[in-house]
Amino acid sequence: MEDAIKKIVTTFLQSSRGKENLDSKSFQKMVSSNLGTIMENAQDKEAVDKVMGDLDSNNDGEVDFTEFIILVGALTVACNDFFLEYNEKQEKK
Amino acid sequence: MEDAIKKIVTTFLQSSRGKENLDSKSFQKMVSSNLGTIMENAQDKEAVDKVMGDLDSNNDGEVDFTEFIILVGALTVACNDFFLEYNEKQEKK
Repeated sequence: MEDAIKKIVTTFLQSSRGKENLDSKSFQKMVSSNLGTIMENAQDKEAVDKVMGDLDSNNDGEVDFTEFIILVGALTVACNDFFLEYNEKQEKK
Repeated sequence: MEDAIKKIVTTFLQSSRGKENLDSKSFQKMVSSNLGTIMENAQDKEAVDKVMGDLDSNNDGEVDFTEFIILVGALTVACNDFFLEYNEKQEKK
């Protein structure tokens, strides 16, 4: 799991090209190239802009690392919920 | 990064042996076998019990998935901070 944590850190660093925050363009690119399967509408600019707006709690027009982790956490919980539902359906068959 | 998210989900499922929560024993084992490098005192029962107490926001004596994700998020932010500090020191040399 430590490799997973490091992967999340390096994904942010690569996407932000070493800067501390992701601007709109780099956030779009990070989502479309890294979250295309887990996130619905990952290729839809408007939908991704909406997600960015929701994450940008300090309204600076950018996503910092802590705001990014909230997205990763929410996706991980959603992935877990999907997994539990899938297992439940399999058991009912 | 999607593999990283899946790894976090499967680590919880394996540690909880398919149950919805981690009890004290399975939380200890999850920490010692998965977070031994990133987390200080990962092998110290008392220290890990303290972390568990801090995470257990609904005080049911167990750690559910959402509480687990808060730990993973905090460790990821700490890992990123460490990385940024390390880079800054390298640049000053």
